[in-house]
Amino acid sequence: MSEQIYIGVDLGGTSIKTGICDQNGQLLKVIETPTQTELGTDAVLNNIAASTRLIIKESPYSWDQVQGIGAGVPGFMDFEEGFMHLSPNLPLTNVPMKKILEEKLGKTVVINNDANVAALGEAWSGAGKGVNILVCYTLGTGVGGGIVIHGKILQGSSGMGGELGHMAIVPDLEATQCGCGQMGCLETVSSATGIIRMAKDAVERGDRTMLVDVVSITAKDVFDAAKAGDETANRIVKRAAYYLGKSIATLAVTVNPDRFVLGGGVSNAGDLILNPVREVFQKFTPAKAQENVDIVIAKLGNNAGVIGAAGLCLR
Amino acid sequence: MSEQIYIGVDLGGTSIKTGICDQNGQLLKVIETPTQTELGTDAVLNNIAASTRLIIKESPYSWDQVQGIGAGVPGFMDFEEGFMHLSPNLPLTNVPMKKILEEKLGKTVVINNDANVAALGEAWSGAGKGVNILVCYTLGTGVGGGIVIHGKILQGSSGMGGELGHMAIVPDLEATQCGCGQMGCLETVSSATGIIRMAKDAVERGDRTMLVDVVSITAKDVFDAAKAGDETANRIVKRAAYYLGKSIATLAVTVNPDRFVLGGGVSNAGDLILNPVREVFQKFTPAKAQENVDIVIAKLGNNAGVIGAAGLCLR
Repeated sequence: MSEQIYIGVDLGGTSIKTGICDQNGQLLKVIETPTQTELGTDAVLNNIAASTRLIIKESPYSWDQVQGIGAGVPGFMDFEEGFMHLSPNLPLTNVPMKKILEEKLGKTVVINNDANVAALGEAWSGAGKGVNILVCYTLGTGVGGGIVIHGKILQGSSGMGGELGHMAIVPDLEATQCGCGQMGCLETVSSATGIIRMAKDAVERGDRTMLVDVVSITAKDVFDAAKAGDETANRIVKRAAYYLGKSIATLAVTVNPDRFVLGGGVSNAGDLILNPVREVFQKFTPAKAQENVDIVIAKLGNNAGVIGAAGLCLR
Repeated sequence: MSEQIYIGVDLGGTSIKTGICDQNGQLLKVIETPTQTELGTDAVLNNIAASTRLIIKESPYSWDQVQGIGAGVPGFMDFEEGFMHLSPNLPLTNVPMKKILEEKLGKTVVINNDANVAALGEAWSGAGKGVNILVCYTLGTGVGGGIVIHGKILQGSSGMGGELGHMAIVPDLEATQCGCGQMGCLETVSSATGIIRMAKDAVERGDRTMLVDVVSITAKDVFDAAKAGDETANRIVKRAAYYLGKSIATLAVTVNPDRFVLGGGVSNAGDLILNPVREVFQKFTPAKAQENVDIVIAKLGNNAGVIGAAGLCLR
C-alpha cells in the first residue's frame, strides 16, 4: 500500500484521539489514548507523539506514507508558528508545540484550535463537503466556530476569525456576562451551558416546568422537556435558537456562505433547534442572501476533530 | 511611456466618472461625463465605452497600454458573468454588461458593485493599503460595504458578501423597516437617511432641539447641531454610532480584519462618529480580537470608486 495518508490528533483534557485519513478525508482508523495532563507538559507532548507512532503500528500503513500530522488543540495559539500561548485545561502554556513535535516525529506538524479544526473536518468530508464557503458552529459547553473559504480556515488578523461564540448578539438589557468577561455573547444563550443556566433561572424563579423535578439539569433534559410539551423548556429552546438564528442572519450578509453547519452536543436536538433557527434566519435575512443557502446538522459527530486535524496538512 | 495602466469607471445615475490608474493604484487622471440614463440602455453603454476612449485621448497614454477596464455599478449582478440583473437608477435590467463592453472595447472588462469597488480602492491605495484583511463601510444614503481578503473581494455564495447595511443589528422592539423590506437593518440607523429620519422623528415628537428651525434636515445639520451641544442631535449621533460599533464588534470575531475603514458622507463627521464607534467596539469585543485592529476614516473620498474599479482588473 503506497497511498498517501494524514494523521489527525484531537487533543482533549482526558484523552488524545488520533486518526488516519486518506487524501479524501475518509477516516481509516482511530484510537484513543490518555492525555495524562497531571504528568505535565513533556508527558503530554510525548503522549501525542507516541499516539501517532502507535496508530501506524496498529495499522496496515507505514510511517513513510504519513504526509503530515495535524493537531486540534483548545486554547489560544499562534497558528503560523504553532506556538501555544494558553490552553485552559492543558499544561501547554507558552509551548512551541509545532517545533517540539516536528523534532520528535520528523514530519510536518500543523496545529490549530479545536473549533476551526472541526469546521475544516465538516468542510472536507462532512456536512460541508464540496461547498465553497462554509460557516460551522460547535454548540457545546461553549460556542465555537470556524469559517472555511475554499478549503482554507479564515484565521483573521489575530486568530479570532470564526470565534462565533463571542458575537455580541444579545441586546444590552437582556444580556448576561460571558466567561470571556464581555456582556451578551452568543455563547451565553446558545451553548449547553447557556441553556442550562436559563433552565436553572426558570426553576429558581418558580416558573411552571417539569424541570423542577430534575436534580442536575442538562441541555438534553431541557430538549426532552420541550418535546414533551413543557412551555418553559420550549421558551428556553426558542431563545437559544433565536439568537443563533440572528447571528446566522448577520453572517449571511457579511461572509455570505453557501452553507451553515451546526455541530456539538446542542445540535443533537435536531429539528427542535433547526426549525426555529431557520425561521429566524428567514425573517432577518434579505431574500438574495438566502438563495441556495442552507442550514444543516453536522455529519461527523465526535470525529470532526480528528478528520479536520488530518486535513490541516493538506488544505 | 510604456507603463501598464488600468481604467476604472464609477457609474452613477447622473455622471460617469472615469479614471486611469497605474499598477500601484495611483490615480493619474480622472474625467466626468454625463450618463444620460434618459436615453436608455444602449446610450448608457455607449457612453461608458466612449468615456474610456476619451480619457485615453486626453491623456499622454495610448490605448495599447490599457491592461483592462473595471466598472463599479450600483445594483444586483452576477460578478463572474458580468451580467446586471437590476440597477435601481439605471436602465441596466438583465444586461450582459461585461460581454457588450468587451465587444465594444476589445479589452477585458470586469464589473462589480459600487460598495465592493470602493472597499477595493481603499485596500489598494487608500486607508487599507498594505492590510491583509479589510472591512470597509460606505455610510451614505444607504450603508454599503466590502470585505477584502488578501486583495480579493469576498463576494460570497450569492453575491451578498460584505452587504454590511443589511445586518439585522437593531433589536426587534426598537427596529424600523429597511428599504429592503426587513426589520432592523444597520442601514436604518447608521446611514445618512437613517440619521435624517431619527432627526425628523425627534422634531415631530417635539423633542427640544435646534433642528426644529432647519427647513430640510441633512445628516450634516445633525452633526453640526451635535457639535454645537444640541442634546437631541447628540443622542441621534450616538445611536447611529452605537449600532455601527456593534456591527463592527460582530465582524471582529468572525472575519477578524486588521482594519475597519469608514467611508461615505457620514464619515465626514470624523471624530464625532469615530470616537463613540470605537468605544462601543471596545466594550463588545474580546481583547484578543481588538489586538492590532484599528478603525479609521477612508482616505480616497469620492475617488475610491474609480480607483477600486481600475483595481478590479488587477486584483
